[in-house]
Amino acid sequence: MSNPIAELIELLTQENISTTAINQAISSMPPDDVALALESIPVAQRRFVWDSIKQTNRLDILVEMRGESRLLLLKELNEFEIAELFSDVDAEDLLEIADSLPDPMIDIALQKMDAKQRDYYRQGVTYEEDEVGRWVDHELLVAAQSIRVSEAMRLFRRTTASYSNTMYLVNRTGRWVGCVHLKTLLNAQPHEHVSELMEEDFPFLEAQTDVIKAADLLEKSEVSALPVLDENHLLVGRFHAGHALEARRLEQEAVQMSNTGLDEDSDLFSPVRRSATSRGLWLGINLLTAFMASAFIGLFEATLEQVVALAVLMPIVASMGGIAGSQTLTLIVRGLALGQITRANLVSLLKKELQVGGLNGIVWSLSIGAVVSWWFQSPLLGLVIALAIVINILMAALSGVIIPVVLDKLKIDPALSGSVILTTVTDIAGYIAFLGLGTLLLL
Amino acid sequence: MSNPIAELIELLTQENISTTAINQAISSMPPDDVALALESIPVAQRRFVWDSIKQTNRLDILVEMRGESRLLLLKELNEFEIAELFSDVDAEDLLEIADSLPDPMIDIALQKMDAKQRDYYRQGVTYEEDEVGRWVDHELLVAAQSIRVSEAMRLFRRTTASYSNTMYLVNRTGRWVGCVHLKTLLNAQPHEHVSELMEEDFPFLEAQTDVIKAADLLEKSEVSALPVLDENHLLVGRFHAGHALEARRLEQEAVQMSNTGLDEDSDLFSPVRRSATSRGLWLGINLLTAFMASAFIGLFEATLEQVVALAVLMPIVASMGGIAGSQTLTLIVRGLALGQITRANLVSLLKKELQVGGLNGIVWSLSIGAVVSWWFQSPLLGLVIALAIVINILMAALSGVIIPVVLDKLKIDPALSGSVILTTVTDIAGYIAFLGLGTLLLL
Repeated sequence: MSNPIAELIELLTQENISTTAINQAISSMPPDDVALALESIPVAQRRFVWDSIKQTNRLDILVEMRGESRLLLLKELNEFEIAELFSDVDAEDLLEIADSLPDPMIDIALQKMDAKQRDYYRQGVTYEEDEVGRWVDHELLVAAQSIRVSEAMRLFRRTTASYSNTMYLVNRTGRWVGCVHLKTLLNAQPHEHVSELMEEDFPFLEAQTDVIKAADLLEKSEVSALPVLDENHLLVGRFHAGHALEARRLEQEAVQMSNTGLDEDSDLFSPVRRSATSRGLWLGINLLTAFMASAFIGLFEATLEQVVALAVLMPIVASMGGIAGSQTLTLIVRGLALGQITRANLVSLLKKELQVGGLNGIVWSLSIGAVVSWWFQSPLLGLVIALAIVINILMAALSGVIIPVVLDKLKIDPALSGSVILTTVTDIAGYIAFLGLGTLLLL
Repeated sequence: MSNPIAELIELLTQENISTTAINQAISSMPPDDVALALESIPVAQRRFVWDSIKQTNRLDILVEMRGESRLLLLKELNEFEIAELFSDVDAEDLLEIADSLPDPMIDIALQKMDAKQRDYYRQGVTYEEDEVGRWVDHELLVAAQSIRVSEAMRLFRRTTASYSNTMYLVNRTGRWVGCVHLKTLLNAQPHEHVSELMEEDFPFLEAQTDVIKAADLLEKSEVSALPVLDENHLLVGRFHAGHALEARRLEQEAVQMSNTGLDEDSDLFSPVRRSATSRGLWLGINLLTAFMASAFIGLFEATLEQVVALAVLMPIVASMGGIAGSQTLTLIVRGLALGQITRANLVSLLKKELQVGGLNGIVWSLSIGAVVSWWFQSPLLGLVIALAIVINILMAALSGVIIPVVLDKLKIDPALSGSVILTTVTDIAGYIAFLGLGTLLLL
């Protein structure tokens, strides 16, 4: 295989692999790739690999691991090993892993830190995981707005940080007042004051801004890092393109996973009982909705006994509604996320979705009706399923618009829970329409 | 409402709104926000708003619009208006909108361009939409590797491009040989040759690299832009953090939309017939799978006639399998995307998923069995559903691992088609297990 992670996994899962061979393979790989490979081998084998990794590389790899995988590994280590591991952790790394560390471990790590890093950490933890204040780094160039260009250039020459081509200027009380571009300084005279070259309208982020919103703002601003300020306009740090890219990557993963009730921190080899528990909750919610649907089918037991073909066909009606409704729901959820849905266009949207649903409902119900008439040699049964499909697809369009809008008003994320509610509605509506019409027309 | 886009939508949907009022509202907003608002009003009203927008702002707004919305608008314009619109389009903008333009319109735009931009365009279109060669910009600083620091600094002072803190160096044949950081130049003497300061191992991208992979590489490299090279190591352009953030944002949208068979270019107010056609295909695919499932239920008509409770309960068995299978599928799809799944760990993974499935299957089937025994006063029916659920959840775990791996081997994206195939399998397996056991044990 040409993929280096796959090659490392193959190597690590071999029996009797030597410490030297592991170290050699790992030495040339970036820590995030090693972390991925470590997460790809069964939990029981990880400890041996971990012990083979050089002490100096361990922390970087640990930081790159997923929450659950990290916790599984840390549980295996004793207090001495953990203290050694955290001997030179910085605030940024500790913030990234804090959520999967028990408090005593965090205390050990904090004791090892210098005062400045400890302050950064304490400031960082005051923000939520999805607030940009938690995502900052502190390698920013800060200077008093009173300095001259020559002094500013001296600072620029010395910095070793990535994404650094702006200097953050503060006033006497330490409040951020604006930024100056390196390029501006290059075109200025050494004795000029930077305050005269400063961009006062340079964009900034409030520390409590959602990190995905912050990534949007960074993208729009076309700079590689933005200052992050607290409510007093004091600098919390900066949010750079690398972190913004990471935030979007993790967000996409989280959305994908949460669609099936999974946690994005899940380990590929999470212990069986742990996995079963976390997934079981979602199965339970689904079970409740399935029982609800069954209860409605139960109302029509007498009909089903007489026309068993209804039982054969009822999943078709439910599933067509579910698919059509999910399409509308997805479109509306995207519109809500982009701020496109307002009172002003909601009615037009609903009308349009009902029209689309109506058209598709008619087209497909004619085909389904024809197939069913022929299959069961009963034009009346064909009519029943055709009508039920039209009704359910219209119901799906209506629910697909209304459910996410209502959830949004209730401050519940429609991307997470919209789909479960919608399919429950379309299942039940489908069964009632189909079995109800069957009772009326076929008995 | 505090959201500026929502406010603009409210304004634009008012009756008798004046051109002046529209222009005033739009003037302070970035083009992407105006584009979003324009996409949020019914198609019939857009032409009037468009005509109110100043000629100089129109192209920027058009570029920011979604493919379908853009096409709907362009269809309304006459040839003269289109020629005017494209009077100063550049290669980058034209590449972004080319897919929604008919060829004659592209020809008009190409005629308006200068020779350099036309070359950029022609090079860009040789790459696919998802290849990074199509995503480059050309505002890069290029110089011969033979120049001195003083000359390089002069070039740096003059550039107005964002994300510019590296210079791209080429040899006599025009091939890229490496980069030099602005910071390195700042710390060098004016008479030094840049070739001695150059980083030869500066990371670069091949133009045919997938743009999402390119964004990963940019994130890892911790620089704000990477050079993009063709197969001869000639510079195609550069890929910067702004484009990488955009690529990830659009990718996430596309994945979300495609889960329900929608195109990410879809307009919120797409014309009814157009919408119905594009969504109808997905409904049709789903209909086929639903008919397949019904055909299997049909095999058990005789059983259903005698034990109608089976008809009432069968959706529960199918849906529990679907949910459990989707959880496994999602985990495996993520693992495949990250390169974590190899021959070496596939068997361990399958074993673990079967164990999780088995455990959850037993726990939930006991509860379901108990509820059903009580509901229908039939312990035997409870036993039938409990067994069927265990079987279907195990089947789901097996399919959840095997389906994406096989699709991946066949070069079919498992994130797109895995879910439809999986739920078809779990539906059919669920019906067969439940109705089959019912036939054996209850008749």
